[in-house]
Amino acid sequence: MHDKHIALAHVNGGRYMRELIEDVFVRHLGNDRLDVDADAVPIEPAAGQVVITTDGFTVQPLEFPGGESGSLAVHGTVNDLAVAGAVPQYLTLNAFIEEGVEVALLERVVASLAAAAAAVGVSVVAGDTKVLRRGEGGGIYLATTGVGVRSGPAMRMKNIRDGDAILVSGCVGDHGIAVMLAREAFGLRGDIRSDAGSVLSLAQAALRLDGLRFMRDPTRGGLATVCSEIQRVTQLGLRLEQATIPVRDAVTSVCEMLGYDPLYLACEGRVLAVVDAKQAEALLETWRALPEGSDAAIIGRVDSRLERVLLETPIGGERYLEELEDDPLPRIC
Amino acid sequence: MHDKHIALAHVNGGRYMRELIEDVFVRHLGNDRLDVDADAVPIEPAAGQVVITTDGFTVQPLEFPGGESGSLAVHGTVNDLAVAGAVPQYLTLNAFIEEGVEVALLERVVASLAAAAAAVGVSVVAGDTKVLRRGEGGGIYLATTGVGVRSGPAMRMKNIRDGDAILVSGCVGDHGIAVMLAREAFGLRGDIRSDAGSVLSLAQAALRLDGLRFMRDPTRGGLATVCSEIQRVTQLGLRLEQATIPVRDAVTSVCEMLGYDPLYLACEGRVLAVVDAKQAEALLETWRALPEGSDAAIIGRVDSRLERVLLETPIGGERYLEELEDDPLPRIC
Repeated sequence: MHDKHIALAHVNGGRYMRELIEDVFVRHLGNDRLDVDADAVPIEPAAGQVVITTDGFTVQPLEFPGGESGSLAVHGTVNDLAVAGAVPQYLTLNAFIEEGVEVALLERVVASLAAAAAAVGVSVVAGDTKVLRRGEGGGIYLATTGVGVRSGPAMRMKNIRDGDAILVSGCVGDHGIAVMLAREAFGLRGDIRSDAGSVLSLAQAALRLDGLRFMRDPTRGGLATVCSEIQRVTQLGLRLEQATIPVRDAVTSVCEMLGYDPLYLACEGRVLAVVDAKQAEALLETWRALPEGSDAAIIGRVDSRLERVLLETPIGGERYLEELEDDPLPRIC
Repeated sequence: MHDKHIALAHVNGGRYMRELIEDVFVRHLGNDRLDVDADAVPIEPAAGQVVITTDGFTVQPLEFPGGESGSLAVHGTVNDLAVAGAVPQYLTLNAFIEEGVEVALLERVVASLAAAAAAVGVSVVAGDTKVLRRGEGGGIYLATTGVGVRSGPAMRMKNIRDGDAILVSGCVGDHGIAVMLAREAFGLRGDIRSDAGSVLSLAQAALRLDGLRFMRDPTRGGLATVCSEIQRVTQLGLRLEQATIPVRDAVTSVCEMLGYDPLYLACEGRVLAVVDAKQAEALLETWRALPEGSDAAIIGRVDSRLERVLLETPIGGERYLEELEDDPLPRIC
């Protein structure tokens, strides 16, 4: 398209809109289902239980070390399906674009979204675009809905039993810190890369083991928030060993400087799993055999004698992980 | 919930977010599928071809005569499924809420969304909420994805044949003018109400007739834009008789004052149908028998001798309806 910046006329239903759709979205996302002249698009879910999920993405900056908004939107939605035990098949995409955004930036976001979708094997089958007036948006907001199919049992928190083991598939907090440092608002620079990525391989590998009770990707609110939710829903306590929870030194350093707790920071490519204790080592080995699971760890267990989420500190102390009250990092995802 | 205004902490994954979700979204939208503790939710599409569609909604003001953002989001998405020949079953909902929005306003939007969904028989099964910092949003933006099932043939523009009749189910331009007057930016006040509503009954009634080729709800870009798209895709000309196109006098007056063409204004509760000419009267009667189709009209025909969309004016003139170039009314939908 000729224009270098997005204008209101790009969503009026007319020629400018058609050019935006064709030259940016269809060019990158084009597949035989994406029919831009259709109101609704046929899909063919595979045999099994169809599941659906949806997410909004407001990350700022749109590009950060290890990812950007487009691939984050794919991974965030795909991961929700993956930890629910499903294989993702289809995505829909909504883009809210602020007037004045560079078309080149939009193209990079859409291109990386397309690449992430192709890598995971999902098709973007329907989309819509709105332009927000200058000062009524924050660059680009995305909303994606994912459809997948589950052939095995549902992952329910209520499957969790006393004594079950808790594992995490890799280091926590990388995404939150990487995005925050990319804003440069703190005057800090680092080489921490976001963990944003697909957890489909991790989830599928875990599903092949007996005794898997539940999986969740710890995004907003981090690992601690997933543990709080498990405790709230199951009414079973959790005991975590801080020394076993993988956190990069660089993440720990930044958190100490700024007063954040890495256990509350968003990850975008990790899985927390609860598994029958007898299968904990098997899951650990399975995950560690995958490149994205090389830092996997057993980090605790379900303990019905507790009524809360208890963290054993490396120096032998204990503290409770409470539900998050205030917002540490807005627009992380 | 205690808070009167939306704050960034309402989306951090912690207690405030849980309260917002439970006290506003779940309270109104609650159904047995909406499991706020799940990553992805099972759905059971009925027998037939599953179809999917998605839309974003940025209408301003959020409340206008005849509708508001929440019900508009339901109707917009349901209507895309309906004109594709499908029965809508499930919706997902993304809300992007600007910091400082009154919780009472959000509640009204969500309540009307819930009422519209219930009236049409669709369940909101999954959702996500993000809060945008003050000055990075415009109140509330919604994105909805709809899943429905089609048991009959696909509605394709390519089904359209030379000589087919073109019908519209009611007056055009009401929505665009109602929203614009609600902004009061023009110093005009009127009693024009938006036509926003479900077209499911109109579409289902039309589907029962033989000879139905294609349906579309003329939203952004209006009736003229749908006709342009049909011409562009089919390479068949269209001849419209302006005198037969239903437009309210009040809409015509406002358009004349402000220099708008009602044929390019968004409708949110109308259907344009292309049908075998032999069935045109039958469709007209069918639609007129429905309350939402009382102003239905046969407005033109497909004419392969033309290469464009031709409008016959009431005084015997002719003019071409061109694809829209500039944006007449931003944030109409």
